[in-house]
Amino acid sequence: MNRHSQKQRGAGYGAWLEYRGLKGEAAQTKYCRVIAPQERDIVMETAVAELARGLGHLFGQGEAAIVATTGSAGLSSSVAIGLWGDGTIVDELFRGTALPEPGGEGYAIRTDRETGGIAIGAASPIGALYGVFHLLRLLGTGRPVEALELVERPVNPLRMINQWDNMDGSVERGYAGSSIFYENNAFTSDTERLSDYARLLASCGINAISINNVNVHRHETMLITPALLPEVAKVAALFRAYGIRLFLSVNYASPLEIGGLVTADPLDEGVREWWRSAANGIYAAIPDFGGFVVKADSESRPGPFDYGRDHADGSNMLAEALRPHGGIVIWRCFVYDCKQDWRDRSTDRARAAYDHFKPLDGRFLDNVILQVKNGPLDFQVREPVSPLLGAMERTNQIIEFQIAQEYTGQQRHLCYLVPQWKETLDYDTHLKGEGSTVKRIVDGSLHGSRYSGIAAVSNIGSDDNWTGHLLAQANLYGYGRLVWDPELSAEEIAEEWIRLTFGGDERTAAVIGKMLMTSWEIYESYTAPLAVGFMVNPDHHYGPNVDGYEYSKWGTYHFADRQGIGVDRTTHTGTGYTSQYAAPNRELYEALESCPDELLLFFHHVPYTHVLHSGKSVIQHIYDTRFEGAARAEELKKAWDSLAGRIDARLHRQAVERLAGQVEYAKEWRDVINTYFYRKSGIADELGRKIY
Amino acid sequence: MNRHSQKQRGAGYGAWLEYRGLKGEAAQTKYCRVIAPQERDIVMETAVAELARGLGHLFGQGEAAIVATTGSAGLSSSVAIGLWGDGTIVDELFRGTALPEPGGEGYAIRTDRETGGIAIGAASPIGALYGVFHLLRLLGTGRPVEALELVERPVNPLRMINQWDNMDGSVERGYAGSSIFYENNAFTSDTERLSDYARLLASCGINAISINNVNVHRHETMLITPALLPEVAKVAALFRAYGIRLFLSVNYASPLEIGGLVTADPLDEGVREWWRSAANGIYAAIPDFGGFVVKADSESRPGPFDYGRDHADGSNMLAEALRPHGGIVIWRCFVYDCKQDWRDRSTDRARAAYDHFKPLDGRFLDNVILQVKNGPLDFQVREPVSPLLGAMERTNQIIEFQIAQEYTGQQRHLCYLVPQWKETLDYDTHLKGEGSTVKRIVDGSLHGSRYSGIAAVSNIGSDDNWTGHLLAQANLYGYGRLVWDPELSAEEIAEEWIRLTFGGDERTAAVIGKMLMTSWEIYESYTAPLAVGFMVNPDHHYGPNVDGYEYSKWGTYHFADRQGIGVDRTTHTGTGYTSQYAAPNRELYEALESCPDELLLFFHHVPYTHVLHSGKSVIQHIYDTRFEGAARAEELKKAWDSLAGRIDARLHRQAVERLAGQVEYAKEWRDVINTYFYRKSGIADELGRKIY
Repeated sequence: MNRHSQKQRGAGYGAWLEYRGLKGEAAQTKYCRVIAPQERDIVMETAVAELARGLGHLFGQGEAAIVATTGSAGLSSSVAIGLWGDGTIVDELFRGTALPEPGGEGYAIRTDRETGGIAIGAASPIGALYGVFHLLRLLGTGRPVEALELVERPVNPLRMINQWDNMDGSVERGYAGSSIFYENNAFTSDTERLSDYARLLASCGINAISINNVNVHRHETMLITPALLPEVAKVAALFRAYGIRLFLSVNYASPLEIGGLVTADPLDEGVREWWRSAANGIYAAIPDFGGFVVKADSESRPGPFDYGRDHADGSNMLAEALRPHGGIVIWRCFVYDCKQDWRDRSTDRARAAYDHFKPLDGRFLDNVILQVKNGPLDFQVREPVSPLLGAMERTNQIIEFQIAQEYTGQQRHLCYLVPQWKETLDYDTHLKGEGSTVKRIVDGSLHGSRYSGIAAVSNIGSDDNWTGHLLAQANLYGYGRLVWDPELSAEEIAEEWIRLTFGGDERTAAVIGKMLMTSWEIYESYTAPLAVGFMVNPDHHYGPNVDGYEYSKWGTYHFADRQGIGVDRTTHTGTGYTSQYAAPNRELYEALESCPDELLLFFHHVPYTHVLHSGKSVIQHIYDTRFEGAARAEELKKAWDSLAGRIDARLHRQAVERLAGQVEYAKEWRDVINTYFYRKSGIADELGRKIY
Repeated sequence: MNRHSQKQRGAGYGAWLEYRGLKGEAAQTKYCRVIAPQERDIVMETAVAELARGLGHLFGQGEAAIVATTGSAGLSSSVAIGLWGDGTIVDELFRGTALPEPGGEGYAIRTDRETGGIAIGAASPIGALYGVFHLLRLLGTGRPVEALELVERPVNPLRMINQWDNMDGSVERGYAGSSIFYENNAFTSDTERLSDYARLLASCGINAISINNVNVHRHETMLITPALLPEVAKVAALFRAYGIRLFLSVNYASPLEIGGLVTADPLDEGVREWWRSAANGIYAAIPDFGGFVVKADSESRPGPFDYGRDHADGSNMLAEALRPHGGIVIWRCFVYDCKQDWRDRSTDRARAAYDHFKPLDGRFLDNVILQVKNGPLDFQVREPVSPLLGAMERTNQIIEFQIAQEYTGQQRHLCYLVPQWKETLDYDTHLKGEGSTVKRIVDGSLHGSRYSGIAAVSNIGSDDNWTGHLLAQANLYGYGRLVWDPELSAEEIAEEWIRLTFGGDERTAAVIGKMLMTSWEIYESYTAPLAVGFMVNPDHHYGPNVDGYEYSKWGTYHFADRQGIGVDRTTHTGTGYTSQYAAPNRELYEALESCPDELLLFFHHVPYTHVLHSGKSVIQHIYDTRFEGAARAEELKKAWDSLAGRIDARLHRQAVERLAGQVEYAKEWRDVINTYFYRKSGIADELGRKIY
């Protein structure tokens, strides 16, 4: 990103890499030189350039000078960077310290006590790049750097972003403009923007990206063909410079649709050969190609079911084609009957992923990874953790989050999702006794998985500030940071992002920090109550519509009648979904008495008069939280308004309208939900507030 | 339409002008010659050609010969055609009979008793053309022609079709393919299809057409400019040959959007001059141009309200521009607040047209016509008649029907609408005492209006059979026939169409006749009950969604809660809408006791336990009619199936799938509506049928 383009791009484009100049104490010790190895591969080149640029901006000197060696006097205002054993000054500076394994993504940073110079040493060029971003983050957030002595390595091996971009330029579930990858069924020529995106991602630790929608349509099916591979390779190179491997979503029916075959049966030798040949072509163009992301037999996409095969057959066939090249298959578990009859209460979509995949444990090749959504339904504001996570001991799994706010306000409402993700990662499945947390499943340690990690659907688009709602940048940043280290708290991550984005003002940090940290709860409190889910308008999923999916084929019902509401997913009287959990979670959810309030309507159908652990009836809880939620949305806006004049006016302006819109829409949610349930239950609000 | 294209176009393309060859007795007296005047204008040319072609096909001889005179021997197998006073044999054959006024659209037909020859005499070429289609209809339906002695003239002066076609090729509320007028933002090159459409329309008496959507978008705004007028003129010529005048829908903001002015204020002299100049341009290209159709200040379209002016100001300004050329302004009264707050029960969309327009009576120029939808809402399966109809004694009015089945099954369900239209036309407004029927308002006789008549939204598109559902052709045909003569019964019209389309088989006529005549009632019986309206999915309006519009801005609510349902539009306790009717209708609707069952929920909010005149409770009525409706939909399918082998297989096939779809969808309606009301009312079906 050169200055020229930055000017063109508008406020917020630099996001958390704006490097607002340091002020006061922090600015006093200047670092104006980078000591770097002379031999640098592309990633080390990036690391050195980012370091020079970051230091230059932070200390107001354009770019820092890059030198190969310096006298000991020069070390005092320098940052040295290098790899273990590369013979540079870095080796010397780290002698005798505990360091990450060579080849890994780790790094170490220490401050030389004598000179005050800083050294970043790493096991690999990408480690060096991460070390650079770490140091710049410390400087940018005003942390002391006089006595650094740290070693870091990422907790999760695969840290992935899924783009749901289509070649026509649209983004499925995109709320920040159009695609930055494609337009008019071709790649965009704006490669600078792609590099800037790679940079943002690398700065918070992302190391993999799939660049097209999991729903692979006609044009995108061609991405793996010689006609488009040279273009894909160019994009791969842009991301490679930032240590990010490129993946493609593929169409399971490719052999049929573009291969001229009459089948896509995974057991057909012709089909297998076709995919082998396709893989050879891809790796010829992109030697470090990551692999395939596959949505098969899901929401009318083709898959092995079309040929009477199962998902192990289907994914293994692709895995065999990729294996010689070191590629992997990421196979999504979002498989359910999307043509369900709403009249049929025995079919439970929540059960589907477990029912489909659990029996296949042990049958997948070791370069297949199953990608499991965090909850059993679909990225709702509140869901239980998917019981499939960790349930397949002999199968690689990664979890899938959605940074894009499909069901959480579509980047028109503020909803900081890190607390939600963190709650999921901290969840104890008890699959191998206490402490079998989701984070230990996805980091690979619980089952000793070969591949593991986390993926998430991106929330960015062509909007100048990347995410539409400026504050939604915190979700992209926070995703990367949390995945790097799930022990970071949501508050810490929020504070980092705020300071990097808006500077070091304490009140700003406190105000925005509170806005972010309360926003999920606020959004939940005026939308679908008690984990019942959905209640949104069909298709686009924005705005309240209590019966929006009630009489549809999608398997997402609330079953509200004049007596009560909720889905009986118990084993005794319901769909049996609770049996998919290990004890004691199974019993926790099964019993009405122990089921947590916030998940109540996901697991139980109860009368409106049922009393929650909170002491409130369900209906009064609905009324109270809707009224409170709408009122708290107003507080969000007031809090932001109070920052006018304290932060960059161009940034401030961007969220004013969004927050005003949220206030209005929160009232709409409040009134629609309250009115619906008042009309249905006939039970008046105890406080006599206005219901229509 | 030449034979070649007919072959290409597929079954059903000829619609009711297929002229299946006569069989049996009817075929014995052959008419193989047309005696025509030598001087023929374009319309007379059409009349003579249609006669020659029709006779030729009916009697299996290709085309009949056209001659100028014949010896008296020749008269026996001839049809003579001419105008009064043109000196042809026609004058002689009609001597001494009562004939329509010269210049009018009437005609006379008589059979010469001596020779058996038939004469069609008319007051104008278009009258001659109508006479031709009349005779062909008699022959095609197997009526005796040995002793004809008839005089006909249309009852309604303006008999109009509104196309809601957009230049991008889409049709707003189109259910039969894409536009036949436009594609890719230009006129289509398929002028033959347009001529064939003109021919279908003329054959049932239509004499006016507006060729673009009342929602006039960017491209269509240009239709009145020199860039596109030559193209419009070509289309006008095609319709002119069939006696149909062409109108355009115009964008009220044209002076702003394409005229370079800063306002479209109707009282601004620059704006007035712009429209005068535009009108001059149009008439230079199309001397018999009909005029403008205008949707202004309606559903976010621009209009005089934007400048603090009223609809009289707005329409008169356009009327002044058209007046020197004999053009008229057709100004739609579909004006209401489409951004209503669903919480606000005092605003009643049903009141809006009357409230907006009634106070303006007397202020409109005499070449302005107000176009009023048949009901106060929007083409629902059941609505009361709009109280605005006839309420403006000093203002020209026409009624607007919708042949396109937007809310009546979208041409996937069978719904023969002639009975609905007839009920509306026969409705007695009592505005000038008993007998003040709608048909007398729209034919101009009640108030002595200068202009009057009927318009309707077309149901055709690019589908081979014009209307998608083959049986929906009956609505287009029936509309024209009913508008020509509102005294025709729905049964008679149905029978004509059936015989012309499928031939003379008695059982076929009986079976399809019954299907058509019961279809409206059947559709009503499984969809929104008791005139409460809507309950459809938003935007596309297909399929059940009871709360689809309940919490929206559109002003179309049912207010169902656990006690009851309906909209209180009474004057005593409701919105006061009933006061817009003249006595005794006002009192009829106002009193719960006298309000007709079928309109109950439009006028009253009642408990589910309220007992109808039928003796059933509202809730039981809902259940019973939904179950019966779905069952009767199956009967429709069975009836059609029973005709396999009796009618042209290619035609038969076309409706099989549609009717099967209707059966399935009727069940969906049944179950969604029943379940919704059971869950809300808690009242069980007396017969214990399955509700979910």
